[in-house]
Amino acid sequence: MDDINKQALEAHKKLRGKIEITLKDQLDKPEKLKLYYTPGVGAVSSHVAKHPEEARDYTWLNNAVAVISDGSAVLGLGNIGPFGALPVMEGKCMLFKQFAGIDAVPIVLNVHSADEIVSAVKAIAPSFGAVNLEDIAAPICFEVEKRLKKELSIPIMHDDQHGTAVVVLAGLINAVKVVGKDLSDCKIVLVGAGAAGVAIAKLLHKYAAPTIVAVDSKGIIESSRANLNDEKKLLLEFAADVQPGSLADAVGGADIFIGVSQPGLLTSEMIKTMANDPIVFALANPVPEVMPDVAEAAGVAVMATGRSDFPNQVNNALAFPGIFRGALDNQVRSITDEHKIKAAETIASFIEKPTENEIIPSIFAENLTAKIALQITQP
Amino acid sequence: MDDINKQALEAHKKLRGKIEITLKDQLDKPEKLKLYYTPGVGAVSSHVAKHPEEARDYTWLNNAVAVISDGSAVLGLGNIGPFGALPVMEGKCMLFKQFAGIDAVPIVLNVHSADEIVSAVKAIAPSFGAVNLEDIAAPICFEVEKRLKKELSIPIMHDDQHGTAVVVLAGLINAVKVVGKDLSDCKIVLVGAGAAGVAIAKLLHKYAAPTIVAVDSKGIIESSRANLNDEKKLLLEFAADVQPGSLADAVGGADIFIGVSQPGLLTSEMIKTMANDPIVFALANPVPEVMPDVAEAAGVAVMATGRSDFPNQVNNALAFPGIFRGALDNQVRSITDEHKIKAAETIASFIEKPTENEIIPSIFAENLTAKIALQITQP
Repeated sequence: MDDINKQALEAHKKLRGKIEITLKDQLDKPEKLKLYYTPGVGAVSSHVAKHPEEARDYTWLNNAVAVISDGSAVLGLGNIGPFGALPVMEGKCMLFKQFAGIDAVPIVLNVHSADEIVSAVKAIAPSFGAVNLEDIAAPICFEVEKRLKKELSIPIMHDDQHGTAVVVLAGLINAVKVVGKDLSDCKIVLVGAGAAGVAIAKLLHKYAAPTIVAVDSKGIIESSRANLNDEKKLLLEFAADVQPGSLADAVGGADIFIGVSQPGLLTSEMIKTMANDPIVFALANPVPEVMPDVAEAAGVAVMATGRSDFPNQVNNALAFPGIFRGALDNQVRSITDEHKIKAAETIASFIEKPTENEIIPSIFAENLTAKIALQITQP
Repeated sequence: MDDINKQALEAHKKLRGKIEITLKDQLDKPEKLKLYYTPGVGAVSSHVAKHPEEARDYTWLNNAVAVISDGSAVLGLGNIGPFGALPVMEGKCMLFKQFAGIDAVPIVLNVHSADEIVSAVKAIAPSFGAVNLEDIAAPICFEVEKRLKKELSIPIMHDDQHGTAVVVLAGLINAVKVVGKDLSDCKIVLVGAGAAGVAIAKLLHKYAAPTIVAVDSKGIIESSRANLNDEKKLLLEFAADVQPGSLADAVGGADIFIGVSQPGLLTSEMIKTMANDPIVFALANPVPEVMPDVAEAAGVAVMATGRSDFPNQVNNALAFPGIFRGALDNQVRSITDEHKIKAAETIASFIEKPTENEIIPSIFAENLTAKIALQITQP
């Protein structure tokens, strides 16, 4: 870990920016200036002003995405502010280009309330064909995304929520095949009720309505708990008669454990109380809720983590490039649950015969972005 | 004109975006992902969060400029809104890259009050190393720039004001040499008291304190006029005892005419009332206040326009690339009058022996950007 950190610092300092703007044609002679700038551009601006729906045909709008963060929940680092967030957003923009050919621009915000974030994004929205919200803390992220989806007519997606949810669903579709269970019949324990946890629960519910018991830092989320926010209240609907208790209580008899929480929360002892052939998605990063060797020794049948150095990496980069590629290409105005489910099924379909060591494809899988993009169509 | 318009529409539709994002290194294998994205980027984000002043060493901040417009005063097209403005802003971003190697991002705003523009720009400011305001209507542009300069610690420049002013000053420095006059002794008539006009007047006053009589659509700007905005009131200080009157009244005996106004305002008859060897900068675009052939026939000694098809083109692209290049390289926090004057002198110095047909260099002049950049230093 120290090695990669040192290498990363050195590589970033050497590049001083991982992305750059380049020109699709050069301005190397006066004729080009007249064509792309004044006076020629005046005709283009006049035309677009009269036909704003054609802006995407004459500018980079058709391919431009803003990657927007206020730096309030960056990776596992927490609220490190806009400058701290910028290297991650630049990296995300690299992924957009590499995997989807999309021109993504890192925008880090100096404002942090839902009102202010919504105002800022709405103000700059005409500059982009879509918006990827990133690393904004819960519960503000929920309100921000909801309002922007309602108030803007371009696709908005908070990737920490939905990208993660799509890939978790893709992985589970294949994981239950490995153990011969039906997702609808499964009892799922979900630990962590932040952006990713809530979105995972909602998408799994929409897809197969399994029993989902959600657990946060105070224990099982159930109706006697005071001060539950709206999103946590929603989670109550995904399981009947949930009783107060701890994570250990929740895990007993569960078919599936999904952690988007803290390192080391899931012990051997807990795993041993799960149903037969337990499935564990331990997604805390870089240190998962349980290490794969411990999980295997305790009898876990299928294991996924967020890490690239173990099998079955749950990586948002499997989902968001194709989702945004499709949304831009097909002029989709809103990314829906149906889109996310189709994206998950497409990702899952890349593994013909799922095994415990292969339920999720590589992000380098050929045609992955293109195949997902085909599913992101207008209703 | 029709030809270039048609060509421009076709060229823009073919490219569908004149700029794109490219990667400085590829993400073509897992190792690269670990270096530039997770987990490696975490160390970079942690470091930058602790040392925000080093963000420019680890991200593209050191080279990234936002080109921001609300579309309220685009070219000569007026208030055509953000989508109409986008092709121009993309073109401006091309100029930034071509002439200064700067990564400029077009940001068009869906808000138009000074308060809202200031809020939006402040919100996204941590994403950029500098801000180029563009095509924002007067008088709002004055307040927006003033407040942003005060409230942000990165360089802010409204190019319609200051880029134009710098190049006009550069041209005048050489024009008065051609006719053997001293700028300080000249009487200047300035027509148009919008963004460019006000900035030109201020910079000329700072440089040489010539007599400047300003004229707007209601005639000579003088103290008996009601409802003058703050910027126009400021212009009163640049000439003593100005009497009410028309443009024709103002022009009588003037050494220099500067128009940033409307086509055809300046007639042969008016020119003939000017002082000996009159200098005319007719900068309305694409049709100037007086055409060069008319001006020459009426006895104009030195003529400049905003057009590339006549000699002596006053083109902002002579100034802003070098000014921003220097501001970024030298970590200048505020672009001052002194910087602008040095930039103008540098541009003027590219013409060794000014003649009536050559007072302003080509934007393709070798080392122009670099030489200007050297002048934009910390105080």
